[in-house]
Amino acid sequence: MGKLLIVGTVAFDAIETPFGKTDKILGGAATFIGLAASQFDIDMAIISIVGDDLPEEYLGILAAKNIDLSGIEVIKGGKTFFWSGKYYNDLNTRETLVTELNVLADFDPVVPKNYRDSDVVMLGNLHPSIQLSVISQMEKKPKLIVLDTMNYWMDNTLEELKEVIKKVDIITINDEEARQLTNEHSLVKAASIIQTMGPKFVVIKKGENGALLFHKDNIFFAPALPLKEVFDPTGAGDTFAGGFVGYLAESKNISFNNLKNAVIHGSNLASFSVEKFGTERMKDLEKSEVKSRLRQFKELTQFDIELQ
Amino acid sequence: MGKLLIVGTVAFDAIETPFGKTDKILGGAATFIGLAASQFDIDMAIISIVGDDLPEEYLGILAAKNIDLSGIEVIKGGKTFFWSGKYYNDLNTRETLVTELNVLADFDPVVPKNYRDSDVVMLGNLHPSIQLSVISQMEKKPKLIVLDTMNYWMDNTLEELKEVIKKVDIITINDEEARQLTNEHSLVKAASIIQTMGPKFVVIKKGENGALLFHKDNIFFAPALPLKEVFDPTGAGDTFAGGFVGYLAESKNISFNNLKNAVIHGSNLASFSVEKFGTERMKDLEKSEVKSRLRQFKELTQFDIELQ
Repeated sequence: MGKLLIVGTVAFDAIETPFGKTDKILGGAATFIGLAASQFDIDMAIISIVGDDLPEEYLGILAAKNIDLSGIEVIKGGKTFFWSGKYYNDLNTRETLVTELNVLADFDPVVPKNYRDSDVVMLGNLHPSIQLSVISQMEKKPKLIVLDTMNYWMDNTLEELKEVIKKVDIITINDEEARQLTNEHSLVKAASIIQTMGPKFVVIKKGENGALLFHKDNIFFAPALPLKEVFDPTGAGDTFAGGFVGYLAESKNISFNNLKNAVIHGSNLASFSVEKFGTERMKDLEKSEVKSRLRQFKELTQFDIELQ
Repeated sequence: MGKLLIVGTVAFDAIETPFGKTDKILGGAATFIGLAASQFDIDMAIISIVGDDLPEEYLGILAAKNIDLSGIEVIKGGKTFFWSGKYYNDLNTRETLVTELNVLADFDPVVPKNYRDSDVVMLGNLHPSIQLSVISQMEKKPKLIVLDTMNYWMDNTLEELKEVIKKVDIITINDEEARQLTNEHSLVKAASIIQTMGPKFVVIKKGENGALLFHKDNIFFAPALPLKEVFDPTGAGDTFAGGFVGYLAESKNISFNNLKNAVIHGSNLASFSVEKFGTERMKDLEKSEVKSRLRQFKELTQFDIELQ
C-alpha cells in the first residue's frame, strides 16, 4: 500500500456565498487534501498544528478516514488558524475577510518516524520554510514530491519558494500564479519555464475552466465537470490535489499516461467538493458516487475520431 | 456528397493586435466558415453580398476551395462591409473601432436553386430577418440548421431572433450570450432553457476555454488547444462553426456521438486560424497538418481509466 504524507493547514473556515453563510466550520488545505485522498487505498498521514479550540469531532472526521493524525500537534490554550471569505455573484471573485494565523505562526513541523519513508509527499500551501523542513526530514527520497503554493508566497518569500520549487517533482499552481511566477502570459510558455526551475511536471489549475498537465512537449487537459450549481468553491483546489496525489500514491506509477488519470481523479473529486459548504460533501462521499461520476467524465471528454 | 449552404458576411477586416496591424484584409463570417468547411469532402455554397471594391483575388481564395459563389451578389459601385477592431494585451479584450455595414444594409439573400435542398444550412451571424429568409427559401427540409448569433441581436432584435431560434436544430453562442439570452448564470441551466426555445443541441463557445455541447442530459466538452502564441483571434468562432458543420455535412450523421467529433473538428481548425492574421493560416492549410493536430487533440484529452 502506498504511503502518502500531507503537510498543510487544518483550520476553521467561515464562508459566505450568494447561497448562504456558515459559522466556523472545518477547513484547511490538509483537511481537503486528506478527505479527497481517502478515496484511495493508501496509508496516509497529515502533519499540521491546531489549537485545543478545534472540536474533537473535527479531527474525528479525518480519523474516520483512517488518516494518521499523530503528526497533528494540538496546542493547549492555542487558537486554530482561522480564515473567513466571501464569494460574489459568479463565485469567481472572492474577498478574504479575516486571516488569523494563530498557532500556525509558530508551526515547526515534525514528520512522524513512520512516514519518513513515504512514497508521495504533498506539500500543501504554507510558508516555504515549513515545506522545506518537511522535505529535509525525509529519510528516503520520496518517489514524488508535489508542491502547492500561492501568489502570497511569490510576493513575500520568493527566494525561499524557489528553493522549494527546485526540490519538487510536480507543482500545482493556478493560471494567474503561473503567469506571475514566470512573467509570461502564455500558459504553454509559462509551464516550460517552470520546468526549468525544477519540477518535471506542472499542473496549472483554471478553476471552473479545468486543469492542464505539462511535461516536456506533452499536454493533457481535464475539464471541470459542468454543474447545475456550484455552491461553495472553498477547498476545490486542495480537493483536486488530494485526488491527484491519492491516486498516484495508490498506483505508484508516475508515467505521463498515469498522471493524466490522476488529473482526472482530481477533477472528479473537486466536482463533488463544490456542491456543499466546506467538507460537507466530501466527508460522506461514497465510492459508488465517485465511480459513477468518473463515467460522466469519460462521456464528457472521450470521442472516437479514427486516425490512420 | 453532403451539401452545405452558408449565409454570412464576406468582408474587409482591419485588425490590430499586440503583435501587429493589418490594412483591409479578407474577413467575414462566411469566409472563415467556408475555409474551415473546405477541409471536408462536401459540396458547398456561400450566400453573401459585397461591393465591387472587394479584390477579385479575395473571392478567388474561396473559389479555389471549390466553394460555389453564385450566391454572392456583387454590387456595382457598392462598398463591402468593413469591420475594424483592436485587441489588448491578453487578446481576451477587444474593442470595435469601425463597423461600416455598406452593402450589407440592403442584403436580401437569394438561395441558389441548386442549394435549396442542402443537407446542412449554416446561418452565420447576421440580422435574424436575413437568417429567416434563408430558412424560408429551402425547398426541402434540411437535415440540420445551425445558427450563430451574438449579443447585438439580443439587444436590438430579440423577438425576431427568437423566431429564428425556434426553427433551428443547433445554436452556437458564447458563454456570456447564453447567460444573456436566458438570464441564468449556470451554463448547464442556460443550455437547458435554450433547448426549450427550439434547438435540440446547444454549443456554448468559451474562447480559449473551449466549447461545450449540450443535448438533454448529455454534455461534451472540447478544449481549445493550448498554444504557445495566439496571434489573432478574429474568426476563431466562425472557423470553429465551419469545422463543425463541414464535418456534419460530410458525415451526414447527427447522433450525439458524431456531434462530439464535430466539436473536436471545429476546435481543431480554430486552433490554426488564430496562429496568423485573418485568413492567412486557413487559406493554405494542408489536410496532413489538420490530421496531425487531431492527434494532438487525442493526446490532450483521452485517458484510460478503466471502469467496470
